[in-house]
Amino acid sequence: MNINMIIYVLGWVLKIEAGSMLLPIICGLIYGETRPVMSLLVSVVISFIIGTLATFRRPKRTDFYAREGFVICALSWFVMSLIGALPFYLSMAIPSYIDALFEIVSGFTTTGASILSDVEHLGKALLFWRSFSHWIGGMGVLVLVLTVLPLGGGYNMMIMKAESPGPDVSKMVPRVADTAKALYRIYLIITVIMVVIYILSGMPVFDALCIGFGTAGTGGFAVRNSGMADYSMLSQFLITIFMILFGVNFNVYYLLQKRKWKDAFHCEEARAYLAIIAISTIFIGCNILSLCNGNVLFAFHHTFFTVGSLITTTGFSTLDFAQWPQASQMVILFLMYCGACAGSTGGGIKVSRILILVKEIGKELHVLIHPEAVKHIRLEGKSIEHNVVRSVNVYFIMYVLLFIISVFIISFDNFDFITNFSAVAATFNNIGPGLGKVGPVSNYFEYSNLSKLVLIFDMLAGRLEILPMMILFLPRTWKRIA
Amino acid sequence: MNINMIIYVLGWVLKIEAGSMLLPIICGLIYGETRPVMSLLVSVVISFIIGTLATFRRPKRTDFYAREGFVICALSWFVMSLIGALPFYLSMAIPSYIDALFEIVSGFTTTGASILSDVEHLGKALLFWRSFSHWIGGMGVLVLVLTVLPLGGGYNMMIMKAESPGPDVSKMVPRVADTAKALYRIYLIITVIMVVIYILSGMPVFDALCIGFGTAGTGGFAVRNSGMADYSMLSQFLITIFMILFGVNFNVYYLLQKRKWKDAFHCEEARAYLAIIAISTIFIGCNILSLCNGNVLFAFHHTFFTVGSLITTTGFSTLDFAQWPQASQMVILFLMYCGACAGSTGGGIKVSRILILVKEIGKELHVLIHPEAVKHIRLEGKSIEHNVVRSVNVYFIMYVLLFIISVFIISFDNFDFITNFSAVAATFNNIGPGLGKVGPVSNYFEYSNLSKLVLIFDMLAGRLEILPMMILFLPRTWKRIA
Repeated sequence: MNINMIIYVLGWVLKIEAGSMLLPIICGLIYGETRPVMSLLVSVVISFIIGTLATFRRPKRTDFYAREGFVICALSWFVMSLIGALPFYLSMAIPSYIDALFEIVSGFTTTGASILSDVEHLGKALLFWRSFSHWIGGMGVLVLVLTVLPLGGGYNMMIMKAESPGPDVSKMVPRVADTAKALYRIYLIITVIMVVIYILSGMPVFDALCIGFGTAGTGGFAVRNSGMADYSMLSQFLITIFMILFGVNFNVYYLLQKRKWKDAFHCEEARAYLAIIAISTIFIGCNILSLCNGNVLFAFHHTFFTVGSLITTTGFSTLDFAQWPQASQMVILFLMYCGACAGSTGGGIKVSRILILVKEIGKELHVLIHPEAVKHIRLEGKSIEHNVVRSVNVYFIMYVLLFIISVFIISFDNFDFITNFSAVAATFNNIGPGLGKVGPVSNYFEYSNLSKLVLIFDMLAGRLEILPMMILFLPRTWKRIA
Repeated sequence: MNINMIIYVLGWVLKIEAGSMLLPIICGLIYGETRPVMSLLVSVVISFIIGTLATFRRPKRTDFYAREGFVICALSWFVMSLIGALPFYLSMAIPSYIDALFEIVSGFTTTGASILSDVEHLGKALLFWRSFSHWIGGMGVLVLVLTVLPLGGGYNMMIMKAESPGPDVSKMVPRVADTAKALYRIYLIITVIMVVIYILSGMPVFDALCIGFGTAGTGGFAVRNSGMADYSMLSQFLITIFMILFGVNFNVYYLLQKRKWKDAFHCEEARAYLAIIAISTIFIGCNILSLCNGNVLFAFHHTFFTVGSLITTTGFSTLDFAQWPQASQMVILFLMYCGACAGSTGGGIKVSRILILVKEIGKELHVLIHPEAVKHIRLEGKSIEHNVVRSVNVYFIMYVLLFIISVFIISFDNFDFITNFSAVAATFNNIGPGLGKVGPVSNYFEYSNLSKLVLIFDMLAGRLEILPMMILFLPRTWKRIA
């Protein structure tokens, strides 16, 4: 285990985190909030000092494998969260450190699950930090590090692989650092356009920025106690559109930018993703029509918002879908698991994985009926390699296993089944609100500290796609520390 | 598709079913029940006539593949159920044919889920038929057919593979027909010993027989409205022991019979199975201790019974475990999915599949940490072939997919989540009682006919391990009918 290299990269992560905390400080100064600004400043100083010490000398040992990539990834997110929770805790806005940690992990992992019932109480600076963490976590902090850190190609690829969502990482351009830069450029440009449009639609500038960070990172933190209900229907509609756009594989935008229109529009995963959105919206819209007194526009407007919010694992809510009929709630649960496209900022299992899993069934049945046939699983017109299929299978098995263990542990708090089940579903898939007692109008405050730690683990495991977190807790990983 | 061969085997299934209905007729004559005996007689005649017509001439075409095996398997169970439901319907004991079908499918698949609240109302003859269907379904009707039908080895293996539970069929003896005979011999001997012991423990002869059939087939039909609560603690304890014994891979008994003690006691799956039982019993026993006013014997007696009943997917119950704390209920849900050993009469996913799935994770992590290593998944000391691992993966994916679809469809009845979730869990895993409104003291009567058909499908898919049912509904299967 190349421990010096790990410390070096972690140091860079902390320096970047210190830098990113300057934005909420500016916000706090504008609104004249003393205590939050002080607590943010202290956090910046701590983060910067540790970061500088860790990056003082570049390590000489160059052995670096997938293992190191996964460990760096898991530790980065862990350390970043420990520091990121400080502003909430030091300003005493959230008196319990575990609660503060829950809140910021929920932010970085773009989950949006909260332990707060009164978010406006936080003040503008901390609300800004909370929402900005979505934006950082959405594309990934290590991807950001790669854009500034002069590391070799081998290192970069291992790190990128560990942090990027989806079954397979396709480099858009040959050099990983260039891919990282291209990703962040697209991310930044769409975010800016979106925030401007939000402001034009009548949202206040502060709200437009924070909700924009949430939309871009597909995290669900709101800045008002009423959630999204206060904004105009036009604003809500625009938010829906941008949530769905940020759930599309970023490769598509790269192809569009390169004017490869045909390739962009033939993305099989994006088509399946849009089809799921359309079918779910139509189904739920019809299903809840009677609840809305037959108001078709009202029913479909809120259904479209909810479907877009849940499949992208954003988690914004305009109304309490926990009150909908069971059949609609089942579709909602499915969307929560399904998730958006690989290579987007959304969480969940990812559409491409679901496509591969379903195609595996098709292949098995085909082989049974035609024993002489040789059949490969194809996605995006290409044959899928055996080790990708295997990793999808193992991911799926680990997913179910971790899910069962998590539900079991939090069930000691003795809440009802739908609450526990959807709490794990909503954190593991980085959504935010669940059903039952953790529905859109409630929060996670009532869970015990043990349960909160489990849910924190689930949020990180969901964002990092399980493997990095598993490797971190494996004794064998640490055996060969030099 | 060799349609003549399929009809021929189906005919034999019906002739055997006609024969097996003679036992409940004798029971009815002893107790002097006219109407049930008449309805059973009519069913016997119908079954026998159709069976005889279908087996009139042995087909000459000999092409026979895995496809035919699966289709025969699915159709046999379907046809057998259609006829087996007749006695309930004709005697008007169950006025709706779909309800009668639900009841007998629940019997043959050894599920034990019932739509009846007053079972004693059925009368002795029909109660006998209901419980006897567990015994027939437990080891499999086609395995029984193979012991009497002079088919070639190739046919036999395909049929046996399709009906036998577990990821891999190990022939105990070179000839399949001999394996089938050996299985039924062991099955019959243990059943007889068990019934004698039940009678000695103080159970009435009728009860001992019917409960014995249920224990052997791991189906959960009771013959009293009070379930198992009326029997003495000694009887309940003996039932627990025999339930667990029938959940062990029958290979173990075969090895014991051949005095290969060492091989028998080294069965990895059986050890894991017993370990799960021990750990679960200790956990739940401690967890519910306060509910039982600290009565340790009471708590552990009923816990042991419940754990044994659920992991073997028998589904007998002595008390209402739907009232236990959430953590215990989660363990119960896990046991429901886990199931017993492959090659036993129990349902569920099977311990060996779970072992393979968990070992896949271990392998993936090992390869990540030691990229140069070559590692195989081993079970029972042997390397597992790639296509077995693949079939386990596909089974698991199909299992989850069918599960989701089933919960979705029955959610239209708008019952709560734990009811729907556990109803599918309890039927798909062939257990019987679930939690919530389908808990041990309730039944499935309130579901709509559509939901009942879905649950009937799930029971069959669970017993036949999905593939035969999937192939039956695939248009491609029927394309090349000659």
